[in-house]
Order: sequence, then structure tokens, then C-alpha cells
Amino acid sequence: MDRAPSTSGSSFELFEIGLDRALELIKKSDARTVGIQVPEGLKRIVSAVAKEIEEKTNAEVIVSGDPCYGACDVDLDLCRVAELVIHIGHSEMLEGDPQLDKIVYIEARMRASVDEAVEKATDLLSARRVGVVTTVQHVHKLDDIVEVLKNGGIEAVIRTGGKRTTYPGQILGCNYEAARNMDVEEYLFVGTGQFHPLGVALATRKKVVAADPVTGNVSIMDTAPMLKRRYGAIARAMDAERIAVLASKKPGQKRMDLARKMAALGEEHGKKMLLIYLDRVEPEVLINLGVDAAVCTACPRIALDDQAKYSVPILTPPEFEILLGLRKEDYLLDEIE
Amino acid sequence: MDRAPSTSGSSFELFEIGLDRALELIKKSDARTVGIQVPEGLKRIVSAVAKEIEEKTNAEVIVSGDPCYGACDVDLDLCRVAELVIHIGHSEMLEGDPQLDKIVYIEARMRASVDEAVEKATDLLSARRVGVVTTVQHVHKLDDIVEVLKNGGIEAVIRTGGKRTTYPGQILGCNYEAARNMDVEEYLFVGTGQFHPLGVALATRKKVVAADPVTGNVSIMDTAPMLKRRYGAIARAMDAERIAVLASKKPGQKRMDLARKMAALGEEHGKKMLLIYLDRVEPEVLINLGVDAAVCTACPRIALDDQAKYSVPILTPPEFEILLGLRKEDYLLDEIE
Repeated sequence: MDRAPSTSGSSFELFEIGLDRALELIKKSDARTVGIQVPEGLKRIVSAVAKEIEEKTNAEVIVSGDPCYGACDVDLDLCRVAELVIHIGHSEMLEGDPQLDKIVYIEARMRASVDEAVEKATDLLSARRVGVVTTVQHVHKLDDIVEVLKNGGIEAVIRTGGKRTTYPGQILGCNYEAARNMDVEEYLFVGTGQFHPLGVALATRKKVVAADPVTGNVSIMDTAPMLKRRYGAIARAMDAERIAVLASKKPGQKRMDLARKMAALGEEHGKKMLLIYLDRVEPEVLINLGVDAAVCTACPRIALDDQAKYSVPILTPPEFEILLGLRKEDYLLDEIE
Repeated sequence: MDRAPSTSGSSFELFEIGLDRALELIKKSDARTVGIQVPEGLKRIVSAVAKEIEEKTNAEVIVSGDPCYGACDVDLDLCRVAELVIHIGHSEMLEGDPQLDKIVYIEARMRASVDEAVEKATDLLSARRVGVVTTVQHVHKLDDIVEVLKNGGIEAVIRTGGKRTTYPGQILGCNYEAARNMDVEEYLFVGTGQFHPLGVALATRKKVVAADPVTGNVSIMDTAPMLKRRYGAIARAMDAERIAVLASKKPGQKRMDLARKMAALGEEHGKKMLLIYLDRVEPEVLINLGVDAAVCTACPRIALDDQAKYSVPILTPPEFEILLGLRKEDYLLDEIE
């Protein structure tokens, strides 16, 4: 039978999770009901976190059971039943809803050293000045990254992002402001996976070297296969007559005005548009509605990364504008500001 | 390419859907934004309904894209962005939340005649007095049912249900009050599928004859296989150490007090209980949390009808009480009052 991993002082194998601050706040606020929300990759530690909170405070713990895809996806329903909500793994993003004031953001900091991967990456960088970006999991290693690059004779350029991010150099799957308006020709991304560095490359259209501190792998991002697939999706959507416009209920993915604009543009061009308001974008939704295509104003990465799961083409708003002949310039990555 | 079915005067092939009342209300209220929510089986008619509303009123239509499992599952988020919400296919159930006042319930009345199936069912009934129950889709045929039974020499007994139902004789998957406290030894259920009549048999523990007006099939319900499976699930959960208690966010499935009671009972009996608040109960949730079993206080039918999808046993609250040795009498079907 599975056992809950030990929190061994609020820390876990891969990540350091600063539960102490949360425990302090729970005690200070005297909250009797505390919610916990974590992304899927951390769901396994939830029972250990819950146990620690229950043992060290007098609070009852309620865990959010729905999937969590980021700080865009905070559980407002949980905020309505809890006095304090510990959101683990993401940095703060949202404001506006009074329920959001209950949320305490606890980041998950990856322990892995970045030095080796960054050093390896310098071999792939040709510029002497590079823009450096990373995710919140590694942002505490920025000084290390700068140091290793400096030792390799490379100047790191780091820029503050927009209001969706908290730290200089921090990017999100849906937001690359920290990589924009930089006078550089190359970027170094430090972090795991291809999801974020591919976004940097699509957003900047410049050379991006990805350095993975966990696997130690380094690579140069190639946007061509993704762009080919995206123009393929646009082409397949050309004949679509009935098109759903998907508007998300998630607090940080809600772009109802954009959805309305897309619906209006489609109607103007003779398409039958159906405005859909939903929490989770899933293949069954579109199958059941019987639409020929969809424009997704929820997470921009659904169209790019999950297209293979869908039987009809899913377009981002800029891609739909390309389809309608309204956007003649280069491909534009959909981002949420 | 799929075409939207015509509404042909607000009616569809299998169901009659009284859209006229909704159109009247939209015009009267001068609502500019109208939401539509339908269960999965009716999702295909949504674009035709949306078109009709947009053509006959000045309202913008927004469709709920999330699954809908009943009147317990009204889309409160949609209520927050629309001025009026048309909920198709279920009768009114809930009150309490001010958002609920925006909902107009439009039932879907199945056109199929019940006469032939009920006449056939009389052969399987041995009592001269039988309790008659049905679902909202056939409740307008109650007079026909009574008449056919009368012609067969059988007296129909029909009783008003509780506050979750609207019509005499109406039952829900989670509520059989219309079948209780009746001085009868046999029941006739009229409607499609085995889901509801099995519930009647489990709730009353009496003979239930099911008559399906669509297929024309009649059958006597057998609860033994389900009870065997349920006691099997209870047995498999005996060794569970870490148990999730699932509490639903859905307005008509929210039983947080019951969930808390189950968590407390489990803890008293040495189990490690984890209180989970969620919208959709799905196998991945339990896999990711790494629990050994779950007690579900959401829809009672998840444990009974969807167990096969889950890798760990899912128990209803009464079943969990059996497991803890707190309930010695007969099996008790979990219902929501």
C-alpha cells in the first residue's frame, strides 16, 4: 500500500516547500479551516502536508481535489469554504476577487543545482550577451546562473516580467514578458521540459537554448514542427461552419471580452459561432456539441500542446484571425497579459 | 459535417422542449445575456436552441460547456455572467443561493407513449395495488399509466416526493421519497434504463417492475448483483489506512457536514482521513492522492454505478458505517434529501 512521503521538516525530495511560513500564518490568523491546493505533480505530498498542518495547528484541513494547472487556476470554491488557502507550487498572479485575499502562495523550489546544465549550455550559445529566463521552481538559482555564464564569458540579461509574474526572469507557459524588449539575439532557458522554452522561442522568434537541471540535457529549441502543426490546424479549420468559442471560468484564464470579440469576428465572416463558458476544456465537450472547430480563449497552450487529443482543430485567437485573413504578418503566440 | 438538428418549433425528435416559455421570459425580462445549460444527452441540440433564442430575442447566448448530471448540478458560474439561465431537462430542485433565482427550468418531455410498455408490465405485476414512480421525462404521462393499469385491474398508488422533486410519483437517482411510506408490496417504474428502477428496488427492498416506453422492454429488477458488488467493495476497503472523504462543490450534492462526520468517524476508528473538496469525482483524483479507499458524499450513484472505473473502493456514507461496524441492520441506500 502506498505511504505518504514524509515531509521531513516541510521539505521533500525534489522540492523545498517552505511550509513554515504557512504554519506561522495559520497560527497567527487562528484559522480553523485551512484549504490546500497543489498542482497534479505534487498531489502525492498533500496528505503529508495536511498531517503536518493538523498536528502543528488546530486547523481542519480541506484539500482541493480538482486538477490545478497554475496560479491562473486557483480554487475560489475552496476559498469560499476555508478561512485560509495554502496554494503550493506557484507564485501569486491574480487580484480583484475578495476571495483571493485568503490565499497564501508557497512556492516549490527545486533543489537541483543548475551549474552543470548551464555550463554545458554555454557551448551552444554563440552570443556574448544572452537573455536569461526560468520558471518559479528555479528562480532562486538566478544568481548561480549569472555566475556560471559570467565564468564562461557571457553577460546575462535579466528583465522583470509583467503583472502575472513575481520575479525577474520568470516566465509562464502563457506569458513571456520577461523575455521581451531585450536587446539580445539569444536566450537561455533554465528549467525542466520543452513546454516553457518552446514558448520562449515562439514568443521571441530568436535562438533559445534550454538547459534542464534535472536531466542535465541542453538543446536548441526548434519551432518549425510546432508552427507546421499550427498552420495545419488553421488549414483544417478553414471549412468549419460551426465554431465554438471557449471562454474559461478559471480566474486567471477568463477572457470573456476576447471570446466575445472572436465570436463577433466569426459571425461577420459568415461562421456560426457558439459561445461556450466552461471550467475544463476537454475533447468530449466539442464532440458532444458537434462543432467543426473551436477558438480557445482559455489557456493558450491547450491549442498548441493538446491538439492531438481533439478530433477538431482548436485555434488560438491570433490563429483564428489568420484563418479569417485578418492577420497577415508572422505567426503570433497567444499570451495572457 | 454535422448539422445542428432543427428545433422545428422548439421541439425535437424524442423530446418536447417547451422553449416558448423561456422565450417569453427572456423578452419580458429584457435579459441581454442568456445562459443555456443542458445534460450531456441534449448537448447536440444546444446550437439550435441558441440560434432560436438569438433570432427571436435580442439576447446574447452563452452555453455551459461543463458536463451536467442533473438539477443538482446547476452552473452557478454561468449564473454569475448571465442575466437569465435556461436549464433544460430537469425539474427545479435547489434554493438558497441568490444566483439560483436566475434559472428557468425547462423540462424535456419524452414523446414516447407509455401505454404498450405499461400494459406489458401488468403481466409481471402480481399485486392489485402498486406504487407508481417515474422520472421527470415521463411524468406528464402519469394519467396514461394510471389508466392502463386500471384497465388491467390494478390500482395505482402515487405519492408526492420530497423537496428535491417537483411532481407526484417523481424519483431521482439519488432520491426515492415518492416511493416511500406506501402501503404497497410492488412498484411499477416507467422510464428508460436500469439506473432509476434499480434505485427504487434498493431503496424500497420490494419487487420493482420496470417498463421502458422507448424499447418496450419490461423486467423485474434484481438487486442481488449490485448488493454483492457493494459488500465486495466494503470488504476490499477493510484494510484501507488512508481514506479520502469526497465532498462535492456541486450545489445539489454539497454535503460538507456529512463529509466532516465521516472523516471524524474514520479518525475515531484509527483511519487516516483526508477531506477532499472537488467538482468532479474522477479516478485520477484518487490515484494522484494515493489513498487506499474513498467515502463519497457527492452523488450517491458514483459509488454504486461507477466503481468499475476506480482502482480503489468507493463507499457511500452508510457503507462506510457498515465497514466501521456502526450499522448492523440491512443495507441502506444513500440518498440526498
